[in-house]
Amino acid sequence: MSSSTGKRNVSPSKDANGSAAKKGKQSLVTPLSTKAVNTVRVLCADMVQKANSGHPGAPMSLAPLAYLLWTQVMKYNPKDPQWLARDRFVLSNGHACALLYAMLHLTGYAQVTMDALKAFRQVDSITAGHPENTLIKGVEVSTGPLGQGISNAVGLAMAEMHLGAVFNKSGHAKIVDNYTYVICGDGCLQEGVSSEASSLAGHLGLGRLIVFYDDNQITIDGDTALSFTEDVAKRYEAYGWHVQTLEDVQDLDALLAATEAAKAETDRPSMIKIRTRIGFGSKKEGSHSVHGSPLGAEDLKQLKSRFGFDPEQAFVVPTEVAELFQAAGAKGAAAQAAWNTAMEAYKGAFPAEASELVRCTEHRLPEGWREKLPRYTPEDKAMATRKFSEIALNVLAPMLPELVGGSADLTPSTLTALACSGDFQKKTPDGRYVRFGVREHGMTALANGMFAYGALRPFVATFLNFIGYAWGAVRLSCLSHLGVIFVMTHDSIGLGEDGPTHQPVETLEQIRAMPNLHLLRPADGNEVSGAYISALEHPYTPSVLALSRQNLPNLEGTSAEKTLLGAYVLAEMGGSNGGGGAPELILTGSGSEVAIAVEAAKTLAETVRVRVVSFPSWELFDQQNKEYRLSVFPAGVPVVSVEASATHGWAKYSHAALGLTWFGASGPYAKVYAKYGLTADNLVSKAREVLAFYAGDRQVPSLIDVPFISKQLDHKPVATSHA
Amino acid sequence: MSSSTGKRNVSPSKDANGSAAKKGKQSLVTPLSTKAVNTVRVLCADMVQKANSGHPGAPMSLAPLAYLLWTQVMKYNPKDPQWLARDRFVLSNGHACALLYAMLHLTGYAQVTMDALKAFRQVDSITAGHPENTLIKGVEVSTGPLGQGISNAVGLAMAEMHLGAVFNKSGHAKIVDNYTYVICGDGCLQEGVSSEASSLAGHLGLGRLIVFYDDNQITIDGDTALSFTEDVAKRYEAYGWHVQTLEDVQDLDALLAATEAAKAETDRPSMIKIRTRIGFGSKKEGSHSVHGSPLGAEDLKQLKSRFGFDPEQAFVVPTEVAELFQAAGAKGAAAQAAWNTAMEAYKGAFPAEASELVRCTEHRLPEGWREKLPRYTPEDKAMATRKFSEIALNVLAPMLPELVGGSADLTPSTLTALACSGDFQKKTPDGRYVRFGVREHGMTALANGMFAYGALRPFVATFLNFIGYAWGAVRLSCLSHLGVIFVMTHDSIGLGEDGPTHQPVETLEQIRAMPNLHLLRPADGNEVSGAYISALEHPYTPSVLALSRQNLPNLEGTSAEKTLLGAYVLAEMGGSNGGGGAPELILTGSGSEVAIAVEAAKTLAETVRVRVVSFPSWELFDQQNKEYRLSVFPAGVPVVSVEASATHGWAKYSHAALGLTWFGASGPYAKVYAKYGLTADNLVSKAREVLAFYAGDRQVPSLIDVPFISKQLDHKPVATSHA
Repeated sequence: MSSSTGKRNVSPSKDANGSAAKKGKQSLVTPLSTKAVNTVRVLCADMVQKANSGHPGAPMSLAPLAYLLWTQVMKYNPKDPQWLARDRFVLSNGHACALLYAMLHLTGYAQVTMDALKAFRQVDSITAGHPENTLIKGVEVSTGPLGQGISNAVGLAMAEMHLGAVFNKSGHAKIVDNYTYVICGDGCLQEGVSSEASSLAGHLGLGRLIVFYDDNQITIDGDTALSFTEDVAKRYEAYGWHVQTLEDVQDLDALLAATEAAKAETDRPSMIKIRTRIGFGSKKEGSHSVHGSPLGAEDLKQLKSRFGFDPEQAFVVPTEVAELFQAAGAKGAAAQAAWNTAMEAYKGAFPAEASELVRCTEHRLPEGWREKLPRYTPEDKAMATRKFSEIALNVLAPMLPELVGGSADLTPSTLTALACSGDFQKKTPDGRYVRFGVREHGMTALANGMFAYGALRPFVATFLNFIGYAWGAVRLSCLSHLGVIFVMTHDSIGLGEDGPTHQPVETLEQIRAMPNLHLLRPADGNEVSGAYISALEHPYTPSVLALSRQNLPNLEGTSAEKTLLGAYVLAEMGGSNGGGGAPELILTGSGSEVAIAVEAAKTLAETVRVRVVSFPSWELFDQQNKEYRLSVFPAGVPVVSVEASATHGWAKYSHAALGLTWFGASGPYAKVYAKYGLTADNLVSKAREVLAFYAGDRQVPSLIDVPFISKQLDHKPVATSHA
Repeated sequence: MSSSTGKRNVSPSKDANGSAAKKGKQSLVTPLSTKAVNTVRVLCADMVQKANSGHPGAPMSLAPLAYLLWTQVMKYNPKDPQWLARDRFVLSNGHACALLYAMLHLTGYAQVTMDALKAFRQVDSITAGHPENTLIKGVEVSTGPLGQGISNAVGLAMAEMHLGAVFNKSGHAKIVDNYTYVICGDGCLQEGVSSEASSLAGHLGLGRLIVFYDDNQITIDGDTALSFTEDVAKRYEAYGWHVQTLEDVQDLDALLAATEAAKAETDRPSMIKIRTRIGFGSKKEGSHSVHGSPLGAEDLKQLKSRFGFDPEQAFVVPTEVAELFQAAGAKGAAAQAAWNTAMEAYKGAFPAEASELVRCTEHRLPEGWREKLPRYTPEDKAMATRKFSEIALNVLAPMLPELVGGSADLTPSTLTALACSGDFQKKTPDGRYVRFGVREHGMTALANGMFAYGALRPFVATFLNFIGYAWGAVRLSCLSHLGVIFVMTHDSIGLGEDGPTHQPVETLEQIRAMPNLHLLRPADGNEVSGAYISALEHPYTPSVLALSRQNLPNLEGTSAEKTLLGAYVLAEMGGSNGGGGAPELILTGSGSEVAIAVEAAKTLAETVRVRVVSFPSWELFDQQNKEYRLSVFPAGVPVVSVEASATHGWAKYSHAALGLTWFGASGPYAKVYAKYGLTADNLVSKAREVLAFYAGDRQVPSLIDVPFISKQLDHKPVATSHA
């Protein structure tokens, strides 16, 4: 039993009626465990103090839970942080990362040295201000933006459930075999993305997902009573979760019992709601002022004295505590050795499945897959690129079991159903088609988690416009190198009647502004095949496929392989001297507007030599060498672009951009295109203006006087109630 | 009582034990009401059929509810759709807009003619595919993107509660006085934004918010059982709502009784969950195939026959039905006349308040307000622009009661607290500071609703990066002309230690790509004052103020007034001939980087004549005449920009852009800036490269060979677990 020091009980405590005593077991609350918990608290406070920046409050209150998870509950091997069968741990309140770093250090993750702890929040250190999966092997997902981690965890648990159903076999049930544990705070539960993910988790009955809710009743603004007075437990029950409530995080025995009860619930996710005191042990304990600032030298000394540490020393781990955590970490080697044996047996009994599982974990694609994607000629039927996508996806899916995904309740529109597989549901976890519901943000965060599990290539689908609901999670796909494939249809005003609330205008440019995100906007069937090739061949860069609702012809000269170059010469025609020679004008564009460029070029070719460049991906083009890029856009040739989108970034690639400067309109698509001047005739007219503009002898063109065609359009709404 | 036709009861029905019978009242279900309801159904089906596009299912199932609301429940005057005291109606499932258009037509909104109904979903028609507030006076908010409408409605109800608390007086309690009614479907309730808004609505106890949940159990993918099996009623109870459940939307008496019970709940928002049959009366009734496609000629004829209409005629409104709805609409004139009388009495008793209320509804600013904003000189203390913002906001707030807003639980960081006002809470509805909780998307959707109410200028605050959570709603601020003010702090990698999960990189460019959205990134105190002036003077264009966490000096030459020009000459210095003359080089940038440009210019001025242009807002600059724009950026002068952001769009305004091509890093801000080359020294070096590049005699510069400096940086993460 622990002792009390001072007015408040600062060590894990329990009364004689506690759970351990009841069961006659030895309590987990011992002088050594108390010392270990307090070591974690002091270490975290030291990290924040040295950095003079960070969040000490949550690590100090959550230290008992971390102690329990890393010494009693979780299966992990610090020597192989990416062991497939490890339990996944997600710190959804990523600002508490000092705690995670401390635990990784103490349990023996080689990368997380004491020096790394001392370099908390410093440039070029792995111990960043919020945990990043790309910096530390052992951080499952990057967290910090609230609500993402718990949602990623739902995806991690879905991946485990699915892969287990696919790969585990009778007598070989422990190949895919782990729990997903989450710590989250009030902030994560206020965010809508976690509501979406949690509702779906309940629907899917993810029995191996266990969330610890750090109910500290404190937010940055002050008390949760300021803005968050709902009954969280009841809400999670409404989602179909198993919910337990604990009054004291210090009661390790009750904590363990609750965790065991959660594990016993095999067909519902579990939430364990735990009352904690933020900044436990600090003079500012229980106050929002201990959330996001260092304790300060004086309070830190007080803390150390209170817990029996030398107030003058920092970063001290008592030997017996170090040994305790090292021993806990070392247990993982034996666990993994046992798993290795099971895996060897599995390989013997199910060699094909074993090799497929390994292939998936390595994101290695099977031989010959690219060739199986369809190629088209201009004689093939005009179809919407979303329809070509449906064909491509269904050629790929039977070959690539790692392709698992679905739509945010737009399956009949995004055309993403898989003919080779049924739904992923509670009773059919081997199904590969996920019914995400109308939850775009949740869907994306779930896909991030599914990818992060390590053996899947998730795809998600909705209308392109609704990436606007999901940016919070898309950003983390990019930052965290999670190669989610976004199948985004209805990619412009070309969707027609649904009108401007559904028509993306800003979206292509918003995607292009994001680092580590490939936008692919294919012009026809061949380019759709190319777009899927690119997406699959970039497992650590997410790809957005922007696809049309309206039918598009298969164009002469398109190519799946050339699509991978980002931009390429599609056609050259005409010329002032009866044809041939170097281009005098280049028309370029992406997706549905390439056909318009080709049509315009035919008219312009009566007087000038015109080149048409299909430009499905800026990001892929930027990766080509300069020689190639110059060969596509030779110096001195005016370029006019056309795209049914904002022209925001086109100044980089064209001298004049025909596009949109305002929101779209509701109507049949051809009439909407005509309204906004996205026609071959208008492109011809604008291109002639550009040729006239450059007919003179202009030096270093003015930044203002460049004829940005889109500026000449003046689209305002038809009427306004404010006018 | 109604009669049954065929196998299914297709008219409103109730048994002898129904609520009306119990109370001994006359039932609302009469042959005429049944005919009226069926007229609405057929009219909506006709609209969709003629457009050959749209959503007939929900209008047909919800027609009884619409009938009840517009004939028995709501206070509205078609002759003055913007009457302040009207009840607000929000169709959150905006795809059901045929229903709304039909009701506006039938009850006498002059704008919505029968011809307008016949032009449903056609270019240049007001009856767009989803309802747009900028097209029809009578559409309160633009809906369609799911989850927004119900969230806007929370904002509408907050505005009513606040304005009522401020302006209503003893004996004059009906000046601000209305309910907010919402119809929403499963889709809206799956979206996280509605979860955020609903949680806060429960917290705030919005007793005048009444939501009708169209529980039709159908989604686009099929049955809600595919993805949405949570207990919605229980969830809303957990939020603190009053929840009622009705089994049949046709029972008008039960519907009215439930509505009255909801109104009797004065301190909780109400949800009335109603079972409906999608596409009621169609052969496809109850199926997802009637959600989003016309019925088809044959089924439409069947429908008309079933309901006693001539199957060969379309757009028919029986005379007695027309008279019924016209009479219902006409009641509003008397209601408004009574209100006008009350308003006259109020004006007499409280002239100052009355004139202030009118001023607010007109978005008219008081005399002399601009001058009261602070101006600074270089001698004034360097501060973060978020700090200058705090000062400006607190100068403005006492003058402008329409400024109501708050932060998504980051008040101590965004510095948006109002010294002149306490919190807006259930028991203090006159407070102007809203504790939104960690709910960025909900916060924005709520602010949209608060603006749409008609007399407020809401401001919302969070870190700039977290606009990524809110784009779904920000887009609607822009599309719907709702001048919300976004106070977005921590606007770059300059926030330092929190690291790349919190550091915006793509965000400025994403904002600039959005139509009708002003980005203002002030460089110092004067420009912060200018940014607030611009934001307030544009009530129908939302503004994003991007503000620094780090301190910035007050610069020589900045000006609040010049900020309104978007870009202006800040300084000119040096020159090869001992100074003076036309500029040979221009350095430009925004916000925190302007000081870097000034410092670099001082070095460069040793050899060339350098101009520094402060560029706080592209959108404002684009609105200036060409002469002015050329005076700032004269033809022939190379421009180098510097901004701690993606360079995506800078090709439009600079020949070379120093910026970011990758995510940021965690560390003290000056070290992070140095890591990414955002220093005066590096800018000097890059500017000299640009000068050398343009020293020759280049014709029509290549699009490739332009020295985009940002391309020369190659920022990759320090390490990667996937490497």
